Amino acid sequence: MSIAETATAFQAYVQEMLHYQEALTLMEWDLRTGAPKRGAELRAEAIGTLSSQVFRMKTSDQMGDYLEKLGQVSADLDEVTRKSVREMQREYDLYRKIPEDRFHEFVVLASKSESVWEDAKRTSNFSLFQPYLEKIVDFTREFVEYWGYTDSKYDTLLDQYEQGMTVKQIDPIFTALRAETITLLQAIQNAGQRVSEEGFRRHCDVASQRKLSLRLLEQMGYDFNAGRLDETVHPFETSVNRYDVRVTTKFLPNDMRSALFSTIHEGGHALYEQGISPNLIGTPLAGGVSNGIHESQSRFWENFIGRSREFWEYNYKHVLEVFPSQFADISMDEFYRGINYVQPSLIRIEADELTYNLHIMVRYEIEKGLVDGTLAVKDLPEIWRARMKEYLGIEPDNDSEGVLQDVHWSDGSFGYFPTYSLGNIYAAQFAAAMAKALPDFKEQVRRGDLSQIRDWLRQNIHQYGKLRTPEEIVKQATGEDLDAKYLIAYLKDKFSALYGL
Amino acid sequence: MSIAETATAFQAYVQEMLHYQEALTLMEWDLRTGAPKRGAELRAEAIGTLSSQVFRMKTSDQMGDYLEKLGQVSADLDEVTRKSVREMQREYDLYRKIPEDRFHEFVVLASKSESVWEDAKRTSNFSLFQPYLEKIVDFTREFVEYWGYTDSKYDTLLDQYEQGMTVKQIDPIFTALRAETITLLQAIQNAGQRVSEEGFRRHCDVASQRKLSLRLLEQMGYDFNAGRLDETVHPFETSVNRYDVRVTTKFLPNDMRSALFSTIHEGGHALYEQGISPNLIGTPLAGGVSNGIHESQSRFWENFIGRSREFWEYNYKHVLEVFPSQFADISMDEFYRGINYVQPSLIRIEADELTYNLHIMVRYEIEKGLVDGTLAVKDLPEIWRARMKEYLGIEPDNDSEGVLQDVHWSDGSFGYFPTYSLGNIYAAQFAAAMAKALPDFKEQVRRGDLSQIRDWLRQNIHQYGKLRTPEEIVKQATGEDLDAKYLIAYLKDKFSALYGL
Repeated sequence: MSIAETATAFQAYVQEMLHYQEALTLMEWDLRTGAPKRGAELRAEAIGTLSSQVFRMKTSDQMGDYLEKLGQVSADLDEVTRKSVREMQREYDLYRKIPEDRFHEFVVLASKSESVWEDAKRTSNFSLFQPYLEKIVDFTREFVEYWGYTDSKYDTLLDQYEQGMTVKQIDPIFTALRAETITLLQAIQNAGQRVSEEGFRRHCDVASQRKLSLRLLEQMGYDFNAGRLDETVHPFETSVNRYDVRVTTKFLPNDMRSALFSTIHEGGHALYEQGISPNLIGTPLAGGVSNGIHESQSRFWENFIGRSREFWEYNYKHVLEVFPSQFADISMDEFYRGINYVQPSLIRIEADELTYNLHIMVRYEIEKGLVDGTLAVKDLPEIWRARMKEYLGIEPDNDSEGVLQDVHWSDGSFGYFPTYSLGNIYAAQFAAAMAKALPDFKEQVRRGDLSQIRDWLRQNIHQYGKLRTPEEIVKQATGEDLDAKYLIAYLKDKFSALYGL
Repeated sequence: MSIAETATAFQAYVQEMLHYQEALTLMEWDLRTGAPKRGAELRAEAIGTLSSQVFRMKTSDQMGDYLEKLGQVSADLDEVTRKSVREMQREYDLYRKIPEDRFHEFVVLASKSESVWEDAKRTSNFSLFQPYLEKIVDFTREFVEYWGYTDSKYDTLLDQYEQGMTVKQIDPIFTALRAETITLLQAIQNAGQRVSEEGFRRHCDVASQRKLSLRLLEQMGYDFNAGRLDETVHPFETSVNRYDVRVTTKFLPNDMRSALFSTIHEGGHALYEQGISPNLIGTPLAGGVSNGIHESQSRFWENFIGRSREFWEYNYKHVLEVFPSQFADISMDEFYRGINYVQPSLIRIEADELTYNLHIMVRYEIEKGLVDGTLAVKDLPEIWRARMKEYLGIEPDNDSEGVLQDVHWSDGSFGYFPTYSLGNIYAAQFAAAMAKALPDFKEQVRRGDLSQIRDWLRQNIHQYGKLRTPEEIVKQATGEDLDAKYLIAYLKDKFSALYGL
């Protein structure tokens, strides 16, 4: 076979694999949005078959053969093929570098561990989970040896969620952000609470909330002919294919903020996927490049746009339109304060914009310690409480609201958490670059015109899919390397104004 | 490998194939119920990949090997395995007996032909479709030679939709039914129309129609934990898996009968699938056995229950509850007459209960002629008009409302149409047997208690899936071979009373 023929065969092979992946994505979307309960068990078996098929194709000798042949002539390949090979090589190595029997043992353990974690969380009993987490950590450390590492073992894990990211890069960024956040938080607490959440407790019917969600998605430029909005307990975005990018939200009758910000957040993820260049369809590059860049898009829309004063200067009338009685005695200013309520709290997923990153840092420090061996699993509950006290000034009464609250560690997803805060840091840096390119961008938001903002994101980030690394995207979109100073400045500005500091 | 090992390997192989089928079924359901329009083209490619996979598995040498080995020891196999082998052998032969290149040519032609048919129907231009239909007929006749036949070529086609059914069996049944139907129809027309449809033209909002549909499905015993109701242009039932049996309906604001009877009809199909023995899960036997038996279940519920006076004696209050103003001046009796309006018409899918079978017979006669070579495609428009005139007393002005109205022939689905009427004939025979077993069954319907009726169907029909042939089911459920006399007697009784004959 000539190089061209091998490249064509490789592309067809990957495309076929992606077709199975499309089926899987839809099957999972369906399970989460409205599949009949009693069918779930059989569905899980079908999902098992299709997952195995995708796994087999990703790790087959056939794939290895394509990667080897094309890897040798990398310089002669067009950019899309070259980077498709790079992407598939990453996944191939992830599985093929680990001895098959060890990987299989790990998969069985991870599945068992996740259900033990559920029990442990429900009963707030860390000792139940401890032996499993210990084994998960051991496996992780063993796997890192197979995968290889240079500076830090943890870098290898980070790289799986955020290509190229390292401890060396994150440490100073998080340290600076933490110090400034804690200072700001203390100032806010000293200033006394100037914000009331009472207005949000009033009953808002789901049909009207849905109407509002649809209106906001439309304003963001979400393409409803290439997507749809459904309701789930845990909101998510999922890409069935390039022209089928679905979002879900969560309607709480007694707190309309839930749907509002879930919708905007997931809408931000969806705009990313809907903005990927159609040239990448059918390749492994037609998706968001990393967890952190993906999260930067959801957070940009949720916080930098959706929690901005300008956004509500335009949109508050739409709230009043669907909920005239509920918000009759609440001014736009009070509404704006209410959606920016700051309060240290125990649960990460309920945290406000300012304190959220502190939750992440607690986890990041623990993960590093577990992976480099300086921390023992048995000590986690105590370390958790100490870190929470240090960073947020509060600590949980029980492990269910502490170290057991998140699912991530139960299947060994170490390296994932930091990407949430990286998303915030990226988002701020993008927002700053955008403000230079579109000097009147706040004015545009105030007019309800988000099209130039979306276009800037599409132009600088979305279109590339996995064609550029996170590092290249940041550099090319903002002219600089990643820096927390933009997020720090933004938080200071915003919350100083809000709390009159 | 021992026999037991081969049987186990065969079962695992089939189960894996069914998992891909489950994914396909869901992907198609999704396309029809709410998938974003722009994603459909890429979805079609993914469906292509999964369909090929299922096709490959059904017709592989591996499958052939299993079938041969297990076929030789058929007598030693348990019933489920033996009949699973029989079922897979049917499908294997269907494709493997045809030369691969001819089959491929046919698939390409059929796909093209279907889109030409759409154009021809839209423009009412038969000559556009004629050359395609001629080729489709030629292929069909060629394929029948490969498949083999004994008495009549058409039997081989019938067998694909209704195992074991023959022209010899259908001819006398249809002849008797036709004569009696035409006599009855003439009597009705002479008696003059005593029924008004006017009440049904009033606007009924979709949300209330949906409520009514859900209530009727619940009354029928449809398991909502193993299914769901959605809305589509063309209502259908689809079985994603044994515990995931979905139905759709069509809401017309200006004719609430559409949703009413679509829901009951599809609900009847669904009860069949929800009633199959769980022992058959994961085998190729876990589905309805034939088109005709499937249709007997939908027609039983739609017509024998849903269009009966007793059903509305109980349920009319539910109509009045959701549509009090629309039906205020319409008595239960007028409602009952309105849902049993008889009027010869041109379009099969809009035909009433009585004249429907005449539409089928027009098609059946034409299909037989095309397949045995006594009829030429070019003469179809004329033959169509002549048959319509003869059977229904009316004829179309154009071919779009005549010979071009149905999609079935465009991809060579000859042998399918008769199963619609067979469904009605089976249904009447089942209803008669049920009336013996449950002498007060009309009283039960009048009380809104449909549980014993559903249980009788489950016991005598549903549970078996494909474990029994249609012939065995009829014989064992009713003690007799198939006979049109039950349908004839039922139609005479019902319409004589309705029209005071």
